[in-house]
Amino acid sequence: MWRELAGVGRAASGGYRRFAWTEADGELGRWFLAEAEARGLRHERDRNGNQWAWLGDPAQGGAVATGSHLDSVPDGGAFDGPLGVVSAFAALDELRARGVTRRRPLTVVRFADEEGARFGVACVGSRLACGLLDPKAARALRDAEGVTLAEAMARAGHDPARLGADPERLAGLAAFLELHIEQGRALAGLGQPVALGSSIRPHGRWRFDFRGAADHAGTTRIEDRRDPMLTYAHTVLSARKRARLAGALATFGRVAAEPGAVNAVPALVRGWLDARADGEEALRELVAGIERAARERGERDGVEVAVTRESHTAGVAFPAALRETLAGLLGDVPHLPTGAGHDAGVLAGAVPTAMLYVRNPTGVSHAPAEHAEIEDCLAGVAALATALEGLVCR
Amino acid sequence: MWRELAGVGRAASGGYRRFAWTEADGELGRWFLAEAEARGLRHERDRNGNQWAWLGDPAQGGAVATGSHLDSVPDGGAFDGPLGVVSAFAALDELRARGVTRRRPLTVVRFADEEGARFGVACVGSRLACGLLDPKAARALRDAEGVTLAEAMARAGHDPARLGADPERLAGLAAFLELHIEQGRALAGLGQPVALGSSIRPHGRWRFDFRGAADHAGTTRIEDRRDPMLTYAHTVLSARKRARLAGALATFGRVAAEPGAVNAVPALVRGWLDARADGEEALRELVAGIERAARERGERDGVEVAVTRESHTAGVAFPAALRETLAGLLGDVPHLPTGAGHDAGVLAGAVPTAMLYVRNPTGVSHAPAEHAEIEDCLAGVAALATALEGLVCR
Repeated sequence: MWRELAGVGRAASGGYRRFAWTEADGELGRWFLAEAEARGLRHERDRNGNQWAWLGDPAQGGAVATGSHLDSVPDGGAFDGPLGVVSAFAALDELRARGVTRRRPLTVVRFADEEGARFGVACVGSRLACGLLDPKAARALRDAEGVTLAEAMARAGHDPARLGADPERLAGLAAFLELHIEQGRALAGLGQPVALGSSIRPHGRWRFDFRGAADHAGTTRIEDRRDPMLTYAHTVLSARKRARLAGALATFGRVAAEPGAVNAVPALVRGWLDARADGEEALRELVAGIERAARERGERDGVEVAVTRESHTAGVAFPAALRETLAGLLGDVPHLPTGAGHDAGVLAGAVPTAMLYVRNPTGVSHAPAEHAEIEDCLAGVAALATALEGLVCR
Repeated sequence: MWRELAGVGRAASGGYRRFAWTEADGELGRWFLAEAEARGLRHERDRNGNQWAWLGDPAQGGAVATGSHLDSVPDGGAFDGPLGVVSAFAALDELRARGVTRRRPLTVVRFADEEGARFGVACVGSRLACGLLDPKAARALRDAEGVTLAEAMARAGHDPARLGADPERLAGLAAFLELHIEQGRALAGLGQPVALGSSIRPHGRWRFDFRGAADHAGTTRIEDRRDPMLTYAHTVLSARKRARLAGALATFGRVAAEPGAVNAVPALVRGWLDARADGEEALRELVAGIERAARERGERDGVEVAVTRESHTAGVAFPAALRETLAGLLGDVPHLPTGAGHDAGVLAGAVPTAMLYVRNPTGVSHAPAEHAEIEDCLAGVAALATALEGLVCR
């Protein structure tokens, strides 16, 4: 399975560019379909573009779901997402090999557009299903070329009119388990291959628009300028400082200047802030402090600052009951919090949800060098199979 | 003439996007050809894509040339470039109306790709003609989409194999006069509509590559990061400070982050510095200081800094003899230095060259709000006609 996936959406950098509703994304969907068919699983694509491969009859209810996503950030690694889907199919094979007697339906799921790399909103497929994203707002999202999500979906053969909450489907699930590569180095420090997820920190994305005045870079006197690049630069440094003091994270990973000529003072600089903290209050204070610093500097520079919250994900504590059941099945595994968002975090509001992490020796994530050892991946599959066995045989 | 040009290459912003060898650029070329033909001028396009409209026989030698460029920066104004070409045709009409007896050929010229907005190098047409840009290097220049200058030229119907120095053509010119909108507010302060150019400050473009390590924005600890956005931000602020202290100009107008995901620490941030100072030594010191500041901060951030000089234009003092002649013809006009590069600055090494500036009341340049009053434009045409009359009747 891994080998067939390796070539899809791979860029010259060695990283992956698997963006929602592109040709590469369609290829990933066909791979999922083929894996389902090869196992005699019933395949369906739900109204929000998520794919499900069923062992047993979904109408029975009380199903156990496992899976993750296949899309990537720009120049992302091979593991973030695909490891959870590949491990789900492999764990299902393992359960069959063990000859377990299933009491519940089991389904492998692939959620659409988790990274939000193309349209700027993460976990679109799971958010829509949970009624946490308005279908009209989703359809109107635009990529960098101005293509709407609705247009991109239609081109890829999916009817955007079908988007919307899917409560019946969610009501049919007794549990959702997502396996994911760890996005840090905690397991490496503990000498363990697999962990259970305990919680997800609250996080969000904010767009900062710095508006000044375009001018000739070679003739406009320093004192006559209203240069938004300066305000942006000050805000970047201020965000880092405030995050460090608060024990939180703040990152400007994307920036755009208009008109973007080398010999012109820009009229507009846009910077996107990703911020995460322990608790909603700490996150709110962090972002408010960064915004205040931006406005103060903006006044000095003659630059207007506008801040738009583009997305927000509340903190999640995975339910203790399911976690205890899994801890009983898996034995003495560590329980880890994370700063990364996941479909599991979105689903947690509607379905009892848990996560398994597989050790990442370098901690590198969202980059080509992201890696997990094969032994650890197999330990992840074994843990997932054991967890699923415990859940579907209850 | 002005009305016909107004619609060409205009963007929704109200600014112009007239980039070299695009469809808009071709339309501007056809406009120039039509203006030449309407006046019975012989039109030719030289080996480097510059256009010439001749009154009289170029073979006679000792010709007087006047003109400017028609291309623009992204979202540029209507005057930067076109005012010089339109005024050249209008001044020629005025000379005919005055019924002057010409002793020399007169030619209106439109230089190709002055702004360098598409391929990153300014004054391509005049630099090639003067042998200051290697034709091979020019052909290999690439735009943001990866299209080479050679490919773009070929698509626009110009043979890139013809590019190269044009010494015979330059030897046939006794003088070149470029009229241009002022790119500052000096004339507004002096209450004068027209000035003579005295000099151009040395200037250049440097690309700063800041290389760190891509990582997940939600999970990588602050102390584990090598975030090049921080180094870039520090460099932007440091450049402004050093320029202010040195009485010089330093601008970062263009920036790009890779991979450019909101939820990833960037692996690479590229920033382009435009720097100008009084004299080569001051410019060298300014850029060296900015580079030093970038490297020092880079060491703290774990970020590698590489600096590449992408272009450099030596300072130009327009020849005193021609300037005195023109001052005699035009009377008591101010003499102004500028920080902006021009084809006139490039040609100054090969041909006696002078510049006329027309008042810009707000000083706005390289932006849609760039403006000159119609009375001042007409004063510019009258001054240009008087200057040309003095030169062609000698």
